[in-house]
Amino acid sequence: MKPTHIEHIGIAVKSIEACLPYYENVLGLKCYAVEEVADQKVKTAFFMVGQTKIELLEATSEDSTIAKFIEKKGEGVHHIAFAVDNLVEALSETEKQGVQLIDKQPRKGAEGLNIAFLHPKSTCSVLTELCEHP
Amino acid sequence: MKPTHIEHIGIAVKSIEACLPYYENVLGLKCYAVEEVADQKVKTAFFMVGQTKIELLEATSEDSTIAKFIEKKGEGVHHIAFAVDNLVEALSETEKQGVQLIDKQPRKGAEGLNIAFLHPKSTCSVLTELCEHP
Repeated sequence: MKPTHIEHIGIAVKSIEACLPYYENVLGLKCYAVEEVADQKVKTAFFMVGQTKIELLEATSEDSTIAKFIEKKGEGVHHIAFAVDNLVEALSETEKQGVQLIDKQPRKGAEGLNIAFLHPKSTCSVLTELCEHP
Repeated sequence: MKPTHIEHIGIAVKSIEACLPYYENVLGLKCYAVEEVADQKVKTAFFMVGQTKIELLEATSEDSTIAKFIEKKGEGVHHIAFAVDNLVEALSETEKQGVQLIDKQPRKGAEGLNIAFLHPKSTCSVLTELCEHP
């Protein structure tokens, strides 16, 4: 695998609304999309900075993984997503190297990307996503 | 302020040596520098992916902020660094907006960059660094 760039950084927040003034007014980034991902029980807000998106993640239910993450670790960076050209190939290579996959097959993520997560046990404790533009 | 890109992502790890196989062999990124920053009591290792560096941070002393971070939160993303064109101006603007600064003036960071940290209390809980290439 050879990722081309960091596609996004996912940040768990208690409230997107409460964080907008920091990202928009202090950092000067424009929130260009707010999207609810129902099956992950999250609301997301996106900002672009260079090649990379900041993805704020707010739980829409108490049993969302984001709610559990915040309960355990507090607000902060939840995952890093690397862009790859060929996700199926990247997952196959990665699994052969003994990495534990959360998603063995690509699935659809926010913004219509094909995505898959690697388990933090195999990635030096950073929850890691691989993304492919379809 | 308007950052141009994400300069680096700082990741706290217990052992750089133990994480090298994941970053180099699984992700396929090349470690191009290992540097000790004595006054911060850390050893750093750098990898480039697109516009952004991954900076692994390993404590060289038990009273390093990285050791304390790992004790409290576990290994994981420690900070996000945004590249800005004019750091003095960015800090001045940011302070006027009520953001709590850790560094009121730029100081030298790894790789000779001028850097300053913003307090996570003012940045939606993400320790945030601003960087300027001198």
